[in-house]
Amino acid sequence: MRHFQDELEALQQRLLQMAGVVESAIHCSVRSLVNRDEKEAVRVLELEDRINHMEIEIDDHTTRLMTLYQPMARDMRFLTAAIKINSDLERMGDLAVNVAQRSLSLIRQPPVKPLVDIPHMADLVESMVQRSLDAFVRRDGAVARQVLESDDAVDDLKDAIYDELVHFMELDPSTVRRAVDLMFVAHNLERIADHATNIGEDVLYLVKGIDVRHHAENRG
Amino acid sequence: MRHFQDELEALQQRLLQMAGVVESAIHCSVRSLVNRDEKEAVRVLELEDRINHMEIEIDDHTTRLMTLYQPMARDMRFLTAAIKINSDLERMGDLAVNVAQRSLSLIRQPPVKPLVDIPHMADLVESMVQRSLDAFVRRDGAVARQVLESDDAVDDLKDAIYDELVHFMELDPSTVRRAVDLMFVAHNLERIADHATNIGEDVLYLVKGIDVRHHAENRG
Repeated sequence: MRHFQDELEALQQRLLQMAGVVESAIHCSVRSLVNRDEKEAVRVLELEDRINHMEIEIDDHTTRLMTLYQPMARDMRFLTAAIKINSDLERMGDLAVNVAQRSLSLIRQPPVKPLVDIPHMADLVESMVQRSLDAFVRRDGAVARQVLESDDAVDDLKDAIYDELVHFMELDPSTVRRAVDLMFVAHNLERIADHATNIGEDVLYLVKGIDVRHHAENRG
Repeated sequence: MRHFQDELEALQQRLLQMAGVVESAIHCSVRSLVNRDEKEAVRVLELEDRINHMEIEIDDHTTRLMTLYQPMARDMRFLTAAIKINSDLERMGDLAVNVAQRSLSLIRQPPVKPLVDIPHMADLVESMVQRSLDAFVRRDGAVARQVLESDDAVDDLKDAIYDELVHFMELDPSTVRRAVDLMFVAHNLERIADHATNIGEDVLYLVKGIDVRHHAENRG
């Protein structure tokens, strides 16, 4: 049996590898939309396959460590955080696939408008995902809190995007299908940000042993 | 210290109580929409508050059992399933709140159309939620599989609802805002069904020790 601390370290490395694949999937899905590039969208589907395998493997690894080593409270907190972060990462992968599918539909039709706000929102969301993982690796509560704060900015951007798209549809009904696709792109990006926020909350719990989940909703 | 099996039983009871509150929240959110009743929507917000508290309590309880009793593999599988089901239930509560918020917006405007498909979809989704919990309590793999199969029917209903709403918006741009609200109601119901499916998958894992998560996506 490997030393328990080595096992925990290996598990964390594996989660980070998975996060890297998930970040690539998100990035490809947005690039596919912005550059109207089908190949990037197809790449997301391939990455999702890898993500799904990694999720199962990490879950098994975590459950095995819980059972074999009978960890103390602190390590058990890390292991339950690992299960949750694993699940959040896998769902981000699914959401990137949703974006890629909307992109494939949009590529086949003329553009509604030049895309400005959605790439901007995507940048912010991608940075939240990265920072949530940084916070996890460094057990950095301050960075985790920044992630929670960014979530409000993402919500504001999403609301602005919705309003603009509703306006387009009301003015020109021929844009309805495409505008609905874009609305769901923004919605999926917002949900990715929600999962990054979940990770930030898990990090705060891990660092301080406090549960901010439902207080976080009342902040600001 | 209570006997470990009593603790597991108490944890399961607590999860079922939470599921009961979540089912009420879903039901109130749909009734609010169908009956154009603000009071039902406000009730959902109250229920969500209870759900959030229950989630934290169940998570703490589960982590404590994992740490205190050093369970064997089989019981550890049950405890990790409890963590996941708890999280799925809490997210269903959030989605019921989303439906209630769309309902509050829709109540203040004239109806787009008589609601037929959405209540039908909601019935199916509510039955999936109930059956996923039945499957969990009875460790019944056959019922869990039925839940997985119902998910396809929910997806088909959602697609039909989207198509009809796009058609309305294209014909009459004055319906855009309300049709978008209804689209997100259908989307939130679909996501509730996804969480019931997650629970069904956890039950199959618990019963048979097999992981159907990413095979399930390829079924039928």
